Amino acid sequence: MYRRFGYHRIETPALEDIRRLQGGEGGENEKLIFQVLKRGLDDETAAGTRTRDLVDLGLRFDLTVPLVRFYAHHHAALPTPFRAFQFAPVWRAERPQKGRYRQFHQCDIDLIGDASVLAEVELIEATTEALDAVGITDTTVRLSDRRFLSALAAHVGLEEPAWPGFFIGLDKLDKIGWDGVRAELVDKRGLPAAAVDQSRTIIEGLIGLDADKVADRLADAVPALPEAVVADMATTVECLAELGRTRAVGWEFDPTLVRGMGYYTGQIFEISHPKSSSSVAGGGRYDKLVGRSLGKDIPACGFSLGFERIVDLITEAPARSALAVLFEPDVPISHALERARQSRAEGRETTVVRRSGKLPAQLTRLEGQGFTGVVHLRDAAAVEAERPLGGVR
Amino acid sequence: MYRRFGYHRIETPALEDIRRLQGGEGGENEKLIFQVLKRGLDDETAAGTRTRDLVDLGLRFDLTVPLVRFYAHHHAALPTPFRAFQFAPVWRAERPQKGRYRQFHQCDIDLIGDASVLAEVELIEATTEALDAVGITDTTVRLSDRRFLSALAAHVGLEEPAWPGFFIGLDKLDKIGWDGVRAELVDKRGLPAAAVDQSRTIIEGLIGLDADKVADRLADAVPALPEAVVADMATTVECLAELGRTRAVGWEFDPTLVRGMGYYTGQIFEISHPKSSSSVAGGGRYDKLVGRSLGKDIPACGFSLGFERIVDLITEAPARSALAVLFEPDVPISHALERARQSRAEGRETTVVRRSGKLPAQLTRLEGQGFTGVVHLRDAAAVEAERPLGGVR
Repeated sequence: MYRRFGYHRIETPALEDIRRLQGGEGGENEKLIFQVLKRGLDDETAAGTRTRDLVDLGLRFDLTVPLVRFYAHHHAALPTPFRAFQFAPVWRAERPQKGRYRQFHQCDIDLIGDASVLAEVELIEATTEALDAVGITDTTVRLSDRRFLSALAAHVGLEEPAWPGFFIGLDKLDKIGWDGVRAELVDKRGLPAAAVDQSRTIIEGLIGLDADKVADRLADAVPALPEAVVADMATTVECLAELGRTRAVGWEFDPTLVRGMGYYTGQIFEISHPKSSSSVAGGGRYDKLVGRSLGKDIPACGFSLGFERIVDLITEAPARSALAVLFEPDVPISHALERARQSRAEGRETTVVRRSGKLPAQLTRLEGQGFTGVVHLRDAAAVEAERPLGGVR
Repeated sequence: MYRRFGYHRIETPALEDIRRLQGGEGGENEKLIFQVLKRGLDDETAAGTRTRDLVDLGLRFDLTVPLVRFYAHHHAALPTPFRAFQFAPVWRAERPQKGRYRQFHQCDIDLIGDASVLAEVELIEATTEALDAVGITDTTVRLSDRRFLSALAAHVGLEEPAWPGFFIGLDKLDKIGWDGVRAELVDKRGLPAAAVDQSRTIIEGLIGLDADKVADRLADAVPALPEAVVADMATTVECLAELGRTRAVGWEFDPTLVRGMGYYTGQIFEISHPKSSSSVAGGGRYDKLVGRSLGKDIPACGFSLGFERIVDLITEAPARSALAVLFEPDVPISHALERARQSRAEGRETTVVRRSGKLPAQLTRLEGQGFTGVVHLRDAAAVEAERPLGGVR
């Protein structure tokens, strides 16, 4: 599906320079890097070396750091805008637990070099279409904008150093509710209660709006909000509403959506599904990140699917049509192989199986392994027809 | 193609326990492991620790070690025989050079639990069919048997401790010729000249035989060769000859083929291609390897494609049909997206592109990027037809 949207698959090495991985963009993930020992270290050298100087490489914790490095190295040879698609493992040295893996897969699409919300709406459409293609529908796109959150924080009178804490608190709303958020922001972080209460009133007035009202109400709620932010939101919402007319994709403006990474600069979004407690995809615009590697800013926007979470949502196994070519010991192997070859030439999954033990028991085993049909070669001369295994599938 | 042969894809973590990776089965590759530092080491602890005790994990250097661990853990839940297919990266800390990568891909199929040469011939057929499916034909399967090589070494009077050196020397024949092999075996390794000359005579008499002569001539050349080895070779060669009647796949019995890894126990094979100086695939039977993890021997056979070498052989880019939906600034984005949606619904690669600069220059750029057609949306109302880009493709 991503290829159909014009995205080109790129693949980068699993190992990156450790200094790049620890460059500060990875937030908490930087503490979870699997670090690789320098090659050829003897005990004596190692003993006199600080731990951090023993390593030179690390396993990537996401696909954004490698993408930015890739783009900075190869941008001269890449089209503008550049559409990249990645599907690859990442590693984090977490304590293994339900839903947390030390190795898992990310499936990212990124559009580098387009400053308009065409990028946002295309990424969202492509991701929902990809989900639809594996049978996951009834998704909801939750949408916010970092620029709106900053303007809101300023509007209620918070100084800029307090903003990150304000955002982190807001982000927990769906888990701890407004009372919890207020406790965290006022009691724990010391923010003025009046500012928190005012932001609550504004936010509650912005939830559940119809598409044609979002832009106006945003502008009313925070008068200092730049016109471009309002116009961008109007376009994105209009396109999502349009998409929702032919696809089972809902959307909502959700000012409590913050997203963890510090590098987002514009619209941010997640996709939620009624059967998943956490979001199945997340992304946003990061216009300043490429510049830190390349030396000049390049607008960029990305969307990442959580592969393992999606697999958990796929309940239906794909239909399978598999033939077992069962041959008696005195049938030449080459005869059985030729029969299998005919079946495979028709595109069918076909396995050659030696007869052993009692026939009914062996047929039951084959059925249990998922075979849907059997050809039983009793001797080299006979032409045997296929019989179905088990009931109708 | 491997799925069509009934192989199930498995995936194992990139990181394995370092002790398992260094278990002695990996030969020279064990010196090339990227080793992962234990988590949470402080400088003080690290300084008093031997280098080898600083690490607990390593990146796998092949897919066989992980497969054997996987099978030993899960065999009770797996069918017998078990057909596994792996396509995954492996890592070796080599000095990067032409044709050598620190991260590269292996594409392995393994059949575990079948002691007969049905495994060998199926693996060979599946691998040649997979190559055929990506346009690589005119391959030659080179075939030997470790049991024959051992019997040959005994036949010419070599003691068992001398066999590995004898095999390593033979393996270099295609690179250094018989004079070089003789120099290495006699002058460097101190093997008796008479034994080396006798083995040369036997080997030269076995090269280039027709399918119906291989088994008899093997038995004549080394009378002590077990009957089972002769019968296995007769079956494999008969099946390969049969395969060659409908496919562009040649074969040859090549007693100088040794294969590097020490764990092979029966037939071994490689696939060569006229445009590749090294083999594009290699494998063989390893009946004793699973037993070292599981505690009881399980017959097994595998075949591994060298993915990067195969990519080098693929010269023809796949045909592409890509549409650019070019829209003027006053056309709403949602209109352009809807036009692209129609094209993608027909399965076509389609990208939405904003009009910028001079039109002919932009069309030339799009053609250079591989687009084959363009729809130019001049205003929201007009219905525009697709025009081809560039010449006929």
